[in-house]
Amino acid sequence: MTIIDFRLRPPLRGFLDTIMYSQGARRDRITGYHGMKPAASAQAQSIDLLLKEMDEAGVTLGVAMGRYSGPYGTVSNEDVAAIVKDYPGRFVGVASIDPSDRRKAIGQIETAKAAGLTGVNIEPGAYPMPMYADDRRLYPIYAYCEDSNVPVVMMAGGSAGPDLSYTMPVHVDRVAGDFPKMKLAISHGGWPWVHEILHVAFRRENVYLSPDQYLCGMPGTDEYVKAANGYLSERFLYASSYPFLSAKDYLEWFRKLPIREAVMERLLYRNAKTFLGLRA
Amino acid sequence: MTIIDFRLRPPLRGFLDTIMYSQGARRDRITGYHGMKPAASAQAQSIDLLLKEMDEAGVTLGVAMGRYSGPYGTVSNEDVAAIVKDYPGRFVGVASIDPSDRRKAIGQIETAKAAGLTGVNIEPGAYPMPMYADDRRLYPIYAYCEDSNVPVVMMAGGSAGPDLSYTMPVHVDRVAGDFPKMKLAISHGGWPWVHEILHVAFRRENVYLSPDQYLCGMPGTDEYVKAANGYLSERFLYASSYPFLSAKDYLEWFRKLPIREAVMERLLYRNAKTFLGLRA
Amino acid sequence: MTIIDFRLRPPLRGFLDTIMYSQGARRDRITGYHGMKPAASAQAQSIDLLLKEMDEAGVTLGVAMGRYSGPYGTVSNEDVAAIVKDYPGRFVGVASIDPSDRRKAIGQIETAKAAGLTGVNIEPGAYPMPMYADDRRLYPIYAYCEDSNVPVVMMAGGSAGPDLSYTMPVHVDRVAGDFPKMKLAISHGGWPWVHEILHVAFRRENVYLSPDQYLCGMPGTDEYVKAANGYLSERFLYASSYPFLSAKDYLEWFRKLPIREAVMERLLYRNAKTFLGLRA
Repeated sequence: MTIIDFRLRPPLRGFLDTIMYSQGARRDRITGYHGMKPAASAQAQSIDLLLKEMDEAGVTLGVAMGRYSGPYGTVSNEDVAAIVKDYPGRFVGVASIDPSDRRKAIGQIETAKAAGLTGVNIEPGAYPMPMYADDRRLYPIYAYCEDSNVPVVMMAGGSAGPDLSYTMPVHVDRVAGDFPKMKLAISHGGWPWVHEILHVAFRRENVYLSPDQYLCGMPGTDEYVKAANGYLSERFLYASSYPFLSAKDYLEWFRKLPIREAVMERLLYRNAKTFLGLRA
Repeated sequence: MTIIDFRLRPPLRGFLDTIMYSQGARRDRITGYHGMKPAASAQAQSIDLLLKEMDEAGVTLGVAMGRYSGPYGTVSNEDVAAIVKDYPGRFVGVASIDPSDRRKAIGQIETAKAAGLTGVNIEPGAYPMPMYADDRRLYPIYAYCEDSNVPVVMMAGGSAGPDLSYTMPVHVDRVAGDFPKMKLAISHGGWPWVHEILHVAFRRENVYLSPDQYLCGMPGTDEYVKAANGYLSERFLYASSYPFLSAKDYLEWFRKLPIREAVMERLLYRNAKTFLGLRA
Repeated sequence: MTIIDFRLRPPLRGFLDTIMYSQGARRDRITGYHGMKPAASAQAQSIDLLLKEMDEAGVTLGVAMGRYSGPYGTVSNEDVAAIVKDYPGRFVGVASIDPSDRRKAIGQIETAKAAGLTGVNIEPGAYPMPMYADDRRLYPIYAYCEDSNVPVVMMAGGSAGPDLSYTMPVHVDRVAGDFPKMKLAISHGGWPWVHEILHVAFRRENVYLSPDQYLCGMPGTDEYVKAANGYLSERFLYASSYPFLSAKDYLEWFRKLPIREAVMERLLYRNAKTFLGLRA
């Protein structure tokens, strides 16, 4: 069985400069808050260990996303493309943008696509100039993505901004409603706004949810799982949020959730494949 | 045992022009999202089949509400009054208004009352000019309703507006607090803001909740039921939201919920009777 | 085992003028909404009965907070200090302030400290001039508290303001983020915003939660308890909210919650001791 981990940041290149690696004690404390143990590969910053953990768990592919962030650090599209090339068949790369210049941002997406990346990662609240998902500066970029069939991943959950207002699902709701043909995957699954984001996904059929680390040990697990078994079965994306959670331990934990057998394969693989437009 | 279904829109007259009938595929997809099967009567648009389903389930009366909406369509008070007359003892009619002209709106309520309708249905986010429940244009109308003892039904949940901000319970909270003697029933039960609307009903004793279709297969069922067994036992209103859910199947499903026997009769009948001021 | 009840208002002095005693019927109705019975001591307004109930349950200390409120009534710091002195070893006093004058407010805190009170109670939405927790008028006071190591208790949950916007956790989130070294305990536990306040406490390590009465019979209990067993184990504060709930009955109820044995002692005692900086 092929398995895609929709959020997995390897200990390589620019990722090592982001706080998920440069502030290991903070990361490990958060891991503990989820009731989990740190991954050996994260602590050792070892790609070989990570690939071994992925193999042991059966994780075929990890989705590695570029990032342009003040508080969290930056990973260039060039770095992501290099990682995808250096480890063939193990990573899918997603581009990031600088949203302050719409022409430049669209150029970044096109350049990244030519370099083999797929889709774009937009992190409104985490940019050096934090903004809401429905900020007008992002609208020309969304229009481009809708028109060019570029899938958009958005971090809209957890600590995705200076305060809780940045994750309010109303912002995502407006974007999804205004660009109904743009595929939109919500990383961190809109947590902690569990009921509200599940409503958005109920109403907007272009919205995919990936609660990733916040599915584990946090309030709301049962409701996410119920939706994954029901109306979200074709739009729920499995993700560990590695290195915050071990790609291996998380998968073992996830497999024990009360998810219908017929649905499990969709969550672990097919939905991500469809969203990203991957070939078999 | 008498049973009142507080939200039931028969396949008759103006209702057939609203999207719940004119867009049958959309409706049936939503039905599936709730984990239910379409009602034969809805698909056939047959009032005879509907009355048969109601009879089989034991639903005595359905509350049919007028509507004045851009996205969802309009059902005139005249149509509602005609339905009530054509099917004696099967429907209670509730009036709708055009909120853009307070004098006209109050006139509509008075005319409807003379024609046998009971109370008024206010759908702030669904009007052709969407507004919040605490919009100042509605305040003279609320004042009239409070002073004239007109019960107000409000759609404030689900997709009741262009985006998620329209269902935020703060709007309902202000209205209920500003008009403490006005009886206010919340259709769609404030979903997805489950905890928050339950707080509003905890705090405001003039608020009734009717989660209707969103009670079924959506996050929050347990919390609504707990409240119905407790402090909401005299202010929870049973409703199927037919034709989105089958009036018959929903009742069978509802009867299996862990609701105390002493409370069940209140939810299915007495609370609606009290709210609407019906005679025995 | 020592037990601290973090919110316990005895029937003495100024407390008798607040609506929790002056409007006994309202209080008892709310008690019933929680599925509990009124405390005999509350109904009789008897401190002797209260001390007996505390003894029977094993509640060593109650935290009695001053209050400056329009709708709920006022309890002066002088009254609180007198109660602490009159019943040695039974009450810890917390000061209140008038937030409309920052110099006066800081003077009140200093005077109260000299009189033996500990920390300050800030109730933004309940002031005679309601404000949000992140109101600019409060920021000089927070700066003083952070710099002077004064723990801050804040009522931010339940009916803590004219409407639901006053309890939105975003306000607390900003305060906790802007004053990261200020210890901040949230009375009423941010209810009904259960998921959202649990996110704030996940993200802000200076935030303590005390859902008190809203833990009981209200939606969200399971999620609060899960967090108390997990990442909140060192920052959850036990409180009955007496006289709304019986200090004795509530403790008996609380002890039956599925809380890990190793954690229970922290919730009932050690966390409050640490927060308030009490000596053994």
